[in-house]
Amino acid sequence: MEMKAFRWESGKLLLLDQRKLPEVEEWVVLEDHLQTAQAIKDMMVRGAPAIGCVAAYGFLMGVRKGEDPKVVYETLKNTRPTAYNLFYALNRMMEAYERGEDLEATAKAIEEEDYLANKKMAQIGNELIPKNARILTHCNTGALATAGYGTALGVIREAHYSNKSIFVWVDETRPYLQGSRLTAWELSKENIPHKIITDSTAGFLMKKGLVDCVIVGADRITKRGDVANKIGTYAL
Amino acid sequence: MEMKAFRWESGKLLLLDQRKLPEVEEWVVLEDHLQTAQAIKDMMVRGAPAIGCVAAYGFLMGVRKGEDPKVVYETLKNTRPTAYNLFYALNRMMEAYERGEDLEATAKAIEEEDYLANKKMAQIGNELIPKNARILTHCNTGALATAGYGTALGVIREAHYSNKSIFVWVDETRPYLQGSRLTAWELSKENIPHKIITDSTAGFLMKKGLVDCVIVGADRITKRGDVANKIGTYAL
Repeated sequence: MEMKAFRWESGKLLLLDQRKLPEVEEWVVLEDHLQTAQAIKDMMVRGAPAIGCVAAYGFLMGVRKGEDPKVVYETLKNTRPTAYNLFYALNRMMEAYERGEDLEATAKAIEEEDYLANKKMAQIGNELIPKNARILTHCNTGALATAGYGTALGVIREAHYSNKSIFVWVDETRPYLQGSRLTAWELSKENIPHKIITDSTAGFLMKKGLVDCVIVGADRITKRGDVANKIGTYAL
Repeated sequence: MEMKAFRWESGKLLLLDQRKLPEVEEWVVLEDHLQTAQAIKDMMVRGAPAIGCVAAYGFLMGVRKGEDPKVVYETLKNTRPTAYNLFYALNRMMEAYERGEDLEATAKAIEEEDYLANKKMAQIGNELIPKNARILTHCNTGALATAGYGTALGVIREAHYSNKSIFVWVDETRPYLQGSRLTAWELSKENIPHKIITDSTAGFLMKKGLVDCVIVGADRITKRGDVANKIGTYAL
């Protein structure tokens, strides 16, 4: 199943309002860069790669409306201070604009490249997953956080599709509950067996020998190999 | 300051409704064993020692109303399967009844003994606490969970009263939030410096060197020294 957090259709951006998941699946239509900036600020979309893609389409819509590209750029840039992909995507759109390149093609390329990178990561990661693995994950790193498929959750998805009979422990991920609200929703949609646990249950499950591997995202990886990620990752 | 979860007054039991804390401090009047059993079932009171004391007074009220002591005993016993103090207190009340002893005095003795045991534990535990300690605790083990003063939180209270300038990290304690709702409320009442954290933040704080000691309760301690306690304790 193709799961998406956003869709570019007929010059508008459709966005799944992630704040209402898992109770309600509501798609919102964004028509310019201001609505896009507000949606990013309001956490309607989250996950660094997804934010980057959405911002790229927001830039495209703003410029198409005849707004000053620099204003559009700044408006979108000031929405979320920690999402690096946001700056990367906006810089790339701005450079495409300055070189007179096709902005729609560039935004689509950003989306497509993220999707393909996820697919590749999923295939490589899947090689590490044993059959019948009980996998623990933290936060949401799935289709909803990216251009589709997901990073850490993409690996889990791939393992499921290769019939490895996996089972997923989903950390609820306090304080914002991305695990119980979003990851569990994605897994339900694809009938991947899983159970939500409180974050503090993870250590006890490991002690009991009920966790075969842990797969989590990485907001940033340093040259030394240190990883920065959602609070709660360190203790795993 | 004397903080209590329940008070025996004029033949009735006043109970602080812990489900409404910290927003509302509401005292409920219990007049017989049925109301007492319902209050225990409904989690109006929690914490094994406090449940034991409340059940003892419930037994007293039931027998005073002329009910069959065996029925009163069974009704109160079937309220909470995991609270060992409940069975201990009820057995002691039943034995006092069979020996024709003063039931009110027995219930008061159960309460008094728990309080004094806590005070003693607090004094002994306090010897282990360094000055300026940043103490991490999990769940609620304070006055609210006991006949007053508290077990693990009693140690913290004692350290504060002996002017050690302590600071407390309060695990919010999912899924029922006894830490953020109850422990933080007790600490606020006594102006003990503290901060609520998500349970999953604890490991990261330790890595950062921001935790000097961890003090938690113990639902049960085996002869070998193994400890059973609230989910989340193991990883600490």
